[in-house]
Amino acid sequence: MTAKAIVDPRDNVLGRARVTDTTELEIFYGELAKRNAGAFWKRANAIEPWEPETRYRPTLWRYAHMRDMCLRAIELVKPDEAGRRVVTLLNDSDAGRENTAVCGWLFSGMQAMRPGEITPAHKHTASAHRFIMEGKGAYTVVDGHPITLGVNDYVLTPNGCWHDHGVDAEGEVSIWQDGLDIPLMNCLETNFYAVYDAPAQAAAFPVNDLPQSYGGAGLRPEGIAAWDKAYSPVMVYRWDAVRDALRNLAEVSEGSPFDGHMMRYANPLTGGWALQTMGAHMQRLPGGFRGKAHRHTGNVIYNVAGGQGYSIIGGQRFDWQTHDIFCVPAWTWHEHVNLDPVDEAFLFSFNDFPVMEALGVRIEDVFKDNDGRQICAL
Amino acid sequence: MTAKAIVDPRDNVLGRARVTDTTELEIFYGELAKRNAGAFWKRANAIEPWEPETRYRPTLWRYAHMRDMCLRAIELVKPDEAGRRVVTLLNDSDAGRENTAVCGWLFSGMQAMRPGEITPAHKHTASAHRFIMEGKGAYTVVDGHPITLGVNDYVLTPNGCWHDHGVDAEGEVSIWQDGLDIPLMNCLETNFYAVYDAPAQAAAFPVNDLPQSYGGAGLRPEGIAAWDKAYSPVMVYRWDAVRDALRNLAEVSEGSPFDGHMMRYANPLTGGWALQTMGAHMQRLPGGFRGKAHRHTGNVIYNVAGGQGYSIIGGQRFDWQTHDIFCVPAWTWHEHVNLDPVDEAFLFSFNDFPVMEALGVRIEDVFKDNDGRQICAL
Amino acid sequence: MTAKAIVDPRDNVLGRARVTDTTELEIFYGELAKRNAGAFWKRANAIEPWEPETRYRPTLWRYAHMRDMCLRAIELVKPDEAGRRVVTLLNDSDAGRENTAVCGWLFSGMQAMRPGEITPAHKHTASAHRFIMEGKGAYTVVDGHPITLGVNDYVLTPNGCWHDHGVDAEGEVSIWQDGLDIPLMNCLETNFYAVYDAPAQAAAFPVNDLPQSYGGAGLRPEGIAAWDKAYSPVMVYRWDAVRDALRNLAEVSEGSPFDGHMMRYANPLTGGWALQTMGAHMQRLPGGFRGKAHRHTGNVIYNVAGGQGYSIIGGQRFDWQTHDIFCVPAWTWHEHVNLDPVDEAFLFSFNDFPVMEALGVRIEDVFKDNDGRQICAL
Amino acid sequence: MTAKAIVDPRDNVLGRARVTDTTELEIFYGELAKRNAGAFWKRANAIEPWEPETRYRPTLWRYAHMRDMCLRAIELVKPDEAGRRVVTLLNDSDAGRENTAVCGWLFSGMQAMRPGEITPAHKHTASAHRFIMEGKGAYTVVDGHPITLGVNDYVLTPNGCWHDHGVDAEGEVSIWQDGLDIPLMNCLETNFYAVYDAPAQAAAFPVNDLPQSYGGAGLRPEGIAAWDKAYSPVMVYRWDAVRDALRNLAEVSEGSPFDGHMMRYANPLTGGWALQTMGAHMQRLPGGFRGKAHRHTGNVIYNVAGGQGYSIIGGQRFDWQTHDIFCVPAWTWHEHVNLDPVDEAFLFSFNDFPVMEALGVRIEDVFKDNDGRQICAL
Repeated sequence: MTAKAIVDPRDNVLGRARVTDTTELEIFYGELAKRNAGAFWKRANAIEPWEPETRYRPTLWRYAHMRDMCLRAIELVKPDEAGRRVVTLLNDSDAGRENTAVCGWLFSGMQAMRPGEITPAHKHTASAHRFIMEGKGAYTVVDGHPITLGVNDYVLTPNGCWHDHGVDAEGEVSIWQDGLDIPLMNCLETNFYAVYDAPAQAAAFPVNDLPQSYGGAGLRPEGIAAWDKAYSPVMVYRWDAVRDALRNLAEVSEGSPFDGHMMRYANPLTGGWALQTMGAHMQRLPGGFRGKAHRHTGNVIYNVAGGQGYSIIGGQRFDWQTHDIFCVPAWTWHEHVNLDPVDEAFLFSFNDFPVMEALGVRIEDVFKDNDGRQICAL
Repeated sequence: MTAKAIVDPRDNVLGRARVTDTTELEIFYGELAKRNAGAFWKRANAIEPWEPETRYRPTLWRYAHMRDMCLRAIELVKPDEAGRRVVTLLNDSDAGRENTAVCGWLFSGMQAMRPGEITPAHKHTASAHRFIMEGKGAYTVVDGHPITLGVNDYVLTPNGCWHDHGVDAEGEVSIWQDGLDIPLMNCLETNFYAVYDAPAQAAAFPVNDLPQSYGGAGLRPEGIAAWDKAYSPVMVYRWDAVRDALRNLAEVSEGSPFDGHMMRYANPLTGGWALQTMGAHMQRLPGGFRGKAHRHTGNVIYNVAGGQGYSIIGGQRFDWQTHDIFCVPAWTWHEHVNLDPVDEAFLFSFNDFPVMEALGVRIEDVFKDNDGRQICAL
Repeated sequence: MTAKAIVDPRDNVLGRARVTDTTELEIFYGELAKRNAGAFWKRANAIEPWEPETRYRPTLWRYAHMRDMCLRAIELVKPDEAGRRVVTLLNDSDAGRENTAVCGWLFSGMQAMRPGEITPAHKHTASAHRFIMEGKGAYTVVDGHPITLGVNDYVLTPNGCWHDHGVDAEGEVSIWQDGLDIPLMNCLETNFYAVYDAPAQAAAFPVNDLPQSYGGAGLRPEGIAAWDKAYSPVMVYRWDAVRDALRNLAEVSEGSPFDGHMMRYANPLTGGWALQTMGAHMQRLPGGFRGKAHRHTGNVIYNVAGGQGYSIIGGQRFDWQTHDIFCVPAWTWHEHVNLDPVDEAFLFSFNDFPVMEALGVRIEDVFKDNDGRQICAL
Repeated sequence: MTAKAIVDPRDNVLGRARVTDTTELEIFYGELAKRNAGAFWKRANAIEPWEPETRYRPTLWRYAHMRDMCLRAIELVKPDEAGRRVVTLLNDSDAGRENTAVCGWLFSGMQAMRPGEITPAHKHTASAHRFIMEGKGAYTVVDGHPITLGVNDYVLTPNGCWHDHGVDAEGEVSIWQDGLDIPLMNCLETNFYAVYDAPAQAAAFPVNDLPQSYGGAGLRPEGIAAWDKAYSPVMVYRWDAVRDALRNLAEVSEGSPFDGHMMRYANPLTGGWALQTMGAHMQRLPGGFRGKAHRHTGNVIYNVAGGQGYSIIGGQRFDWQTHDIFCVPAWTWHEHVNLDPVDEAFLFSFNDFPVMEALGVRIEDVFKDNDGRQICAL
């Protein structure tokens, strides 16, 4: 977390620290140190940069490679020994390796399960959500609510909820991406963990009761127990419905110059994010879409839900195809391109925007030069 | 609005007015009257009843009859002379006739339109919503947003929005039910009216842009202008989606003993009602459903969206079938029965619950005797 | 509630009803009537006026007179017979007398109590608040919380709370103004009433516990039970603090051209109104203040807390001095003048603005001619 | 930020990682590393601790010492060279020194200014607040609003606001404590900085206009521009009013067993915290108060506003007197004792609870053994 003490010519101005150290001051600094204190001006310019400088780097993980890694993992370790046989995605930076982070204070991993296997039931303060990439018969149980999972579905396992996962005996090997805010919870010193007193929860509710109760568009069930949780009762967002909603939007809206047509996975009782600490989107880039660049506070991890294209992130081009994963660090210019002139592409993504918004620091900047597009360093 | 000065034996108790008038008091009352004043104890028991006594009566309108009336109305008067060729539903009570009210401070009417006809554009402080009963090619334009309308769709024309309606030249005669809070707005002395400077609005947005943007279940569009209105951006709720949502709910929930499976037409950005002053529901009574009785503050007007059955309202049985309309006045016991042992029945309804909730007076009571069911006065 | 069927030349326009009745139509109307129905166009222009026309009239009650009436009331009737020996203020209009209303759907009365007397404990759905005009030793008990009352204090007895009042044996005759929404609750058919099982509540909390816990400016107590009510926990707003706050505001702000310096009695946990259905203000008119005219939906009842001046309401001048009470009906032009060139004047007032806001119909209009001031009809 | 990979006997359970590494696995780990990936089970127990383990230590700074340091700082460096001649308080831990943090992700410093001196105007994404410890004539200007500052006043300089400080030429040397969320903003990569184009802002509003407009207890000004900021409009909370509010509370409430009588500096328009990322309290420990122990997520930094006593923090006793500063790290047991048997003591404190609450992780635990009090390690 050490900020660099760069000598920046912009710092030579009233309102920035420009003290020349003297012998007397050095003595003073020593006395301060003995009292658990320091001179602010020695660190001020370093800890108050003109703008954020991310410690993370754009990184891409090819599904072709990572899928193999996941399948090897389930060969090599037993589920009851590993708990979760997750392959962790580590940002290509010291911060990523140090914080076990995919980008920012977010964790991501990929997890494969074979038919009949389960992940033991547990809970933690960290919130989790998952995006299904392949397989059949996968399911999760969240606080007693069983939820079935299909390809490109997005599912919540919110903070503090008991959860276990599995694949039906008649299913197929299933692979999904996990997103969690474990690094944030550790960073904030708020991470608690508990294991359930049985390997798996018994179903306390009918299968898919929450999505079937709350998943009607613009509708809210009456006459059942009031929902008093801070997270979305929808719990799972089905791919077919999301894709259709994006196509409906595309028929009536030009969409965003940066993101094409984009839907937030929302809490229909508040309009806000589905979880308190992480958000998620599905976006549709029309055939031939060539997005413009912007940057913002907050980190985004993408999973290509379909199609092929590339993104220019911090001046560097990253080509992607289905189920490749890549990330955009905070305050880094980025733009997306769909390489197919006709077919749409879909990008799933998750982010820490809810944190930025809750703390009043969601800030955005639009790239103005070169018709809004970065000059790519090939 | 005069409350009855009934002599109630319960009033003979400390805390109720029990003054015996004297000559001296009569003189005093006369002097008060000269000063625009009165003696509270003369009116207290009347204006502070032990519980509400509605001025309205349960009333039923048969679609078979009312449909004829609507069709005759469009024969008899020209659209540009009548403005809206609406047949008004008047509660079978003095209050209903006096206040032009269907029940409580709610207005309802039925409106037929022929292909190629329009209702001239106008706006008012009163909020309106509509439930389509038959026809093809009907549409409305709300503040420049064109919206197509199909049978059993529910559509909003919120307070203060310009709106005009029509049926496409290639459509069919269309009939819908209007619900408005005109009586409430008059009662509160807040009703403003304006006519548009053209017979109809030009489309300022693509057809169905709002439902297609905001009608995705649990999804919220990003990258388009933020919604800053107090009403739901969904604007129209399609019958197919509502019916499917109710069936999904029915698979996982027993529903309410009073209302079976029930969905509120909600604002997905708040979870609240779609309009500020009127709410609406669609409910599904499973085959053989025999509901229990309850009563509550607030008034409800039902439109049978499908099936046949009866409701016992204030001890009186009202048989209904598709598109019959009936009402339940405030604080009146009511229960619903689906006469078909197998097929589901659907009741659309609208109400003034948002007013009750906003003012802190939504109160409910459950019928306890006779296993929760009224003894019906045949 | 019957709206007048005025023939207005503005109605001769597309978008208003302009049907000429025929014999055929008369027959049709007759058939509609038999079916509890009517022709909308017959009533449309009447129930959809171009703008609100109030049924109430500006009315003023002189304290000199009303005080006498209150004192005679407590001579003439016994407290346990009358329940509340309130002199009701009736708007000088049919609507006022019919609805037992001071203005709009608001009730107001004046109540005197002698030392040692009590008003028996009861509760009702209607909300109440009170403004103390004279006396010593008055108190109220609200849901077990005892609250002492001084001159120009403003106190809440919210909907559904048990409450009783009294004056200490060592106190002096006390007079206050009551404001309630009884007419609104009756109009909405939501009024319930109950008497307590003892003449007075025992104190369940220390005297003034709520104002002393929640009455710190910009402060909120921690470590005590969370406040979960829809009304303000402050309960009583003391005159000294309100007056000082207004003077503080006056030092840094020009105030409003209509109202001078004005403070809302607010709920410090929400910033909103102290009660859900009625609001209240104290405003300060600087010496020589000559306000401009505006009008708005909603009704306001004033009680002169100090000073002398006049208000022009609907073109009519009403002179006032301390503790005179007057009202401004909905959508009626009004402006206030402080006749003293140096000394400030204070107006307490209460209103139904929370209802207007909750239902989305708080609308205001500014008088533009004659430098913003009405021509007064002397 | 590296979490320790402790071997904890509790980890030998289903639901925790218990994989025995093999040669084959080592090879696999190597391949993962090449692809910016890792095996989750290698890190799982470390990054998902059973409960939080803070990286910070309780630390106390004596005012007697720190005051000297502050006065020396203003001797040794010129205001226009240092920008802010702040003595930074560094938690006695690696994390504190590394993150320039007083505790958690909070920064604190002490700042002295001489009459006639100013701190140049600037702004930053980090939020700041200040607690005045001694002096006369200090002031701040926040977005053009001048605010005077007295001893024990608490003042806001919210995120993104231009601010500069000074002491009047006729004033006295003034010392205050600064609290900021600079470490959090850096940690989240959201910190922006800008210098004003003049050394100091010109007053754009009357002196103390905001506290004088919004500082009335339970009152809200009307007729002035609506407040649309996410922070409290009160801006400065005066010591006299805070002390009196606490004494009022003490008369009617026993207070909390942990904190005595305690008031949150609140936003009167929301009831929430005055700033989005940092909260603050003043608490009153009655004479002889001997608090019980609890612990919670979130960090607290105390400044003794008056009196003398001690706190046991993580089993260690810290004695304190007026204007000593000390901190309680996250999830650390703590209890407070007022050593004076009669006189009250006051503790000002600030915290990161708003972050904990906004992210759904404000969690508390009560110490149950030994009548709720820690056994102090002397």
